[in-house]
Amino acid sequence: GSFEAEATVAQRQITLTKPQGSLGRLEEIAGWLARWQSRDMPKLDRVKTIIFAGNHGVTTQGVSAYPAEVTVQMVKNFANGGAAINQLARISNAELEVIPLDLDQPTADFTQAPAMSEAEFLAAINTGYEAVDKNLDLICLGEMGIGNTTPAAALAAALFGSDDVQNWTGRGTGVDDAGLKRKIAAIEAGLARHKAALGNPLQIAACLGGRELAAILGATLAARHHGVPVLLDGFVCTAAIAPLARLHQQGLAHVLAAHVSAEPGHHRLLEALELKPLLDLGMRLGEGSGACLAVNLVRSALECHVRMASFDEAGVSES
Amino acid sequence: GSFEAEATVAQRQITLTKPQGSLGRLEEIAGWLARWQSRDMPKLDRVKTIIFAGNHGVTTQGVSAYPAEVTVQMVKNFANGGAAINQLARISNAELEVIPLDLDQPTADFTQAPAMSEAEFLAAINTGYEAVDKNLDLICLGEMGIGNTTPAAALAAALFGSDDVQNWTGRGTGVDDAGLKRKIAAIEAGLARHKAALGNPLQIAACLGGRELAAILGATLAARHHGVPVLLDGFVCTAAIAPLARLHQQGLAHVLAAHVSAEPGHHRLLEALELKPLLDLGMRLGEGSGACLAVNLVRSALECHVRMASFDEAGVSES
Repeated sequence: GSFEAEATVAQRQITLTKPQGSLGRLEEIAGWLARWQSRDMPKLDRVKTIIFAGNHGVTTQGVSAYPAEVTVQMVKNFANGGAAINQLARISNAELEVIPLDLDQPTADFTQAPAMSEAEFLAAINTGYEAVDKNLDLICLGEMGIGNTTPAAALAAALFGSDDVQNWTGRGTGVDDAGLKRKIAAIEAGLARHKAALGNPLQIAACLGGRELAAILGATLAARHHGVPVLLDGFVCTAAIAPLARLHQQGLAHVLAAHVSAEPGHHRLLEALELKPLLDLGMRLGEGSGACLAVNLVRSALECHVRMASFDEAGVSES
Repeated sequence: GSFEAEATVAQRQITLTKPQGSLGRLEEIAGWLARWQSRDMPKLDRVKTIIFAGNHGVTTQGVSAYPAEVTVQMVKNFANGGAAINQLARISNAELEVIPLDLDQPTADFTQAPAMSEAEFLAAINTGYEAVDKNLDLICLGEMGIGNTTPAAALAAALFGSDDVQNWTGRGTGVDDAGLKRKIAAIEAGLARHKAALGNPLQIAACLGGRELAAILGATLAARHHGVPVLLDGFVCTAAIAPLARLHQQGLAHVLAAHVSAEPGHHRLLEALELKPLLDLGMRLGEGSGACLAVNLVRSALECHVRMASFDEAGVSES
């Protein structure tokens, strides 16, 4: 990233016809784009949303309100343009790509074994890494995977406090009370089984995560390498990249949290990661929906930055 | 409004390919549009932002960081496309109209006399009322007027608690500590002078408000009459229409608060009015900027509602 580009943006912001700081976080967003694109005048010509999809062995523990075949069915729905993300991508002028990861081969049930072998984990990371085109100006990362708030909560607990699993665990797509109990029990069992891995953020992701989560981590690494700012979706995506924050203090500096979801663990996880969400609309859908919804805020920030007149140009008196 | 149209939207939402309620406030927005447009399938073909501009006699008390001539200068900036709202209106595909109200004739200094005579007040309300085209599908209301967070805070205090003026009063465009003290003193003086008016919400608006605030009140009435949902901007706009809530318990039911601004009185006023803002981005610019920024959220809600596939259509299993 370029601190110089960010400073250039701040210098220009001061000259624009508005009280200083009065565009609030829109001003911060303009600086963030500049820093990670390393451009004094950022652009948003190519914005893309990628949804990674995976299936989860832990669904056999009865942790989701939906049957596992819904993952494949929703991937078809994405292809046919019928899902929420299709509408949100269209109106935010973002390309949309869906990348299924071995949907016919769920991860192992993490209460019994590591979710992924090292080879499987690295393959998924690599798929995510390779999916990021270096010419993008902004990327939204999203996911689809029935049962995947269970690995997400397991990751969050393993990384930031495994003593209170119930506080990381919510109802996901809408599991009932009995299902919520089974979900908490499965996560506790997973944490106990993989105790030896809990000191290593990447081993945590391999043992307790999922293929789509690993791909999101890989894509986030690639985005950093290529200078592509990242808009982060909800709880699952945040848990997926949380290991990067544990590996490096600035590991998520190129990531902006698009929203905080209604899944209760998300608020807590964002606080632990010191990420401040742009939107708080009670959404809990995944698919990159929250990230894509925030694209227009980023576009708005950029348009104001690029196209507003200065006090001099407009002949407006300063304070 | 049509509760039937809102109920029809809720019925359709249940069938769409997402866990029930998972689009959060986007689902509520779709129902709100339907209710106030009285359409089972709402539309957003014509969205408009109107900025009302006025000048304020109370600026002679030294309550603003900017000189009063900036109101006229900014109106020119709007005409030339150089302000933040020009960029935000363009990318939200909203028409933009700016309506100056007697800028060469500021209101009276309310510490000395009523800001407006009854005739002036009614003329301003009428200008706002007539500005609303009945064929609009959504309207964003905004304002420009150097010094107008002072009448806004005065209105809020007069309507919802005049014992703690300091809690309604912020720095507006960025007044310094001494200016903030003068601002509080001016509001307290105005409240004392117009004590006899404080029982009547419309007299409060005439004595302590301003022309652009009265026009916003009039436009909000017209929008209700014509079935045009309203996106409300920041502190000044909210204070402008607060009298309607005091006149009728459902007086603001067709209004959605687009954002909560950084002006501290705004959060408090929205709470008093039981309006829950969509955005909280630390903005404090006015011009309808927060309202216009939320247009895309409303468009997103509508697109998801209208164009998502149902579980049946997509062949997705339900929970």
